[in-house]
Amino acid sequence: VNWLVVLAGGRGERFWPLSRQRRPKQFLRLLSDRTMIQETVDRVAALFPPERTLVVTGADYVDLVCEQLPAVPRGHVLGEPVGRNTAPSVAWAARWIMERDPEAVLTVLPSDHAILRPEAFRKLLRQAVSYAAETGRMTLFGIVPDRPETGFGYIEVARPGPGPIDVVRFVEKPDVVRAREMVASGRHYWNSGMFVLPLGTFWATLERTLPEVAGGAETLVRRPGAESAVFAALPEVSLDVGVMERAGHLAVMPADIGWDDVGTFAAVARIRAEQQPDRVHLDRTDDVVVIGEEGPWVAGIGIRHLVVVRTPDVVLILPPEEAQEVRQVVRQLAERGCHELL
Amino acid sequence: VNWLVVLAGGRGERFWPLSRQRRPKQFLRLLSDRTMIQETVDRVAALFPPERTLVVTGADYVDLVCEQLPAVPRGHVLGEPVGRNTAPSVAWAARWIMERDPEAVLTVLPSDHAILRPEAFRKLLRQAVSYAAETGRMTLFGIVPDRPETGFGYIEVARPGPGPIDVVRFVEKPDVVRAREMVASGRHYWNSGMFVLPLGTFWATLERTLPEVAGGAETLVRRPGAESAVFAALPEVSLDVGVMERAGHLAVMPADIGWDDVGTFAAVARIRAEQQPDRVHLDRTDDVVVIGEEGPWVAGIGIRHLVVVRTPDVVLILPPEEAQEVRQVVRQLAERGCHELL
Repeated sequence: VNWLVVLAGGRGERFWPLSRQRRPKQFLRLLSDRTMIQETVDRVAALFPPERTLVVTGADYVDLVCEQLPAVPRGHVLGEPVGRNTAPSVAWAARWIMERDPEAVLTVLPSDHAILRPEAFRKLLRQAVSYAAETGRMTLFGIVPDRPETGFGYIEVARPGPGPIDVVRFVEKPDVVRAREMVASGRHYWNSGMFVLPLGTFWATLERTLPEVAGGAETLVRRPGAESAVFAALPEVSLDVGVMERAGHLAVMPADIGWDDVGTFAAVARIRAEQQPDRVHLDRTDDVVVIGEEGPWVAGIGIRHLVVVRTPDVVLILPPEEAQEVRQVVRQLAERGCHELL
Repeated sequence: VNWLVVLAGGRGERFWPLSRQRRPKQFLRLLSDRTMIQETVDRVAALFPPERTLVVTGADYVDLVCEQLPAVPRGHVLGEPVGRNTAPSVAWAARWIMERDPEAVLTVLPSDHAILRPEAFRKLLRQAVSYAAETGRMTLFGIVPDRPETGFGYIEVARPGPGPIDVVRFVEKPDVVRAREMVASGRHYWNSGMFVLPLGTFWATLERTLPEVAGGAETLVRRPGAESAVFAALPEVSLDVGVMERAGHLAVMPADIGWDDVGTFAAVARIRAEQQPDRVHLDRTDDVVVIGEEGPWVAGIGIRHLVVVRTPDVVLILPPEEAQEVRQVVRQLAERGCHELL
């Protein structure tokens, strides 16, 4: 049957000061009064009951996941002692499910993305799961691009959707010229990191492409307590690069679902637009977004094109185009010795 | 002998959220780690010992004055039940001193102005006090203007300084064309609200120009406890309009002393320039000034031309040219019912 695997291992340095070492992005209320991981699980709750939901996260965040997703059994939250990117995470989850349900179809979702048209997403997801179950083909979600984004990988197909359709090749993060060509072609989709994986096909592919990861995952499931030793020896590799790009015979489901990876505060500001949290007072401002539910009131007069991130102990002010630089400031503060802020 | 009269009755709405109803501008650390009123008294401490210092303030602020100026005897802090502008304040102080020292020369200073060249100021003040004592002439400080400011009144003289020189007339707040002409003339000074008043001359002039205020002041001194009744009946009138502009035979001491009335956050930002308080982190910013010692860290990335005012419960962000609009926001918040912020 169908299982949900939620990947929640991210660190989210670009969301400081909202995100801290102890509370990365997926555990924040960035877009609504639910956290990103809660939104991720809520969004597909009609398809996956909690007893068929698995979460892979950092060992430090297991308690936080259980707190935010109280319906998910504690044993379904796998805590990685160190992050080794997504291939080991999915492998561990797949092997854990294989022990219980070898015929399963896994839906793998990142825990920190936005989907503005969830109904459309659920419809396509049902289709993709049925298709994957029937055909045994691993099926990716390909996002219909609306801009020449250079920060994502692309999936090329032979003809435009509707899907599922055959994947021709993966294209690494392009330069802007190439990105424009791809968007114009109608035959390229953003790789969203969302996968539908028939367990048999996936496991066979993993054993072929990353046998040491498959072996590690088997040990993790067979010998509880071996996590530290196993992870220390695992390579750091993403599911895309390590498995998908070397798999062949993949399908893609083109999806126009208002997807956003919410990579920076600029994305949060774009998605939230002028929707402000409580305790904000803006007088003759333009394109100003306040992010953060806690901390002091924020009042603005005659300012424009700014993101204000509010927490009880730090207020960060930046124009959205500087959102990538937040990591740099986190580093500078570490150098200044301001560890209490990180 | 010489007495200092400090006027500390202001409300300071333009300094919200630093200033609140319970702590107006003169009691804030706006420019240094001393409050404005402390700076005012410290600056002339060499001329006026605490036992010859008098402060006139709102009744609600008497405790605050005593706390911030512990050397000044509590009986030297006169608390007005309601504000009636500066003529009644100076009249009360003058009459209070007259009972003890009828030959006194009063130096009247606002408690919330900046003087960036205090040594030059003290030198001119000693001159002015000597001159006033010898001649019996009321002597004003006239600030050598460095810009065509339309927010101040001007004092016109027959020939440029050095002073003391005769006042020809007062000019009300001018339009910008007239202000430019006056600055260019070299014969106009800003009226700074700083006065040196030989008590005999002042009292005679007050009895002539504002007899009801002179009478009220006499009652205040003779009958302690009559403050509410007396102030209820007093007219609201400034020392400039009510007395000085109708006095005649005035002298002015031109002063190039780095004076600023610190009317708004824009002035604070200009004076403080890039000097930031603690717990501020700015990365590639230009012309950004953080004001306020308490409250959260302020971090800025790639922002320019902004004033950030920090308090524990409100952070205000504005470009300096909007500093006049702070009062408007205070009114808007009152309308929203956010009284805890005011």
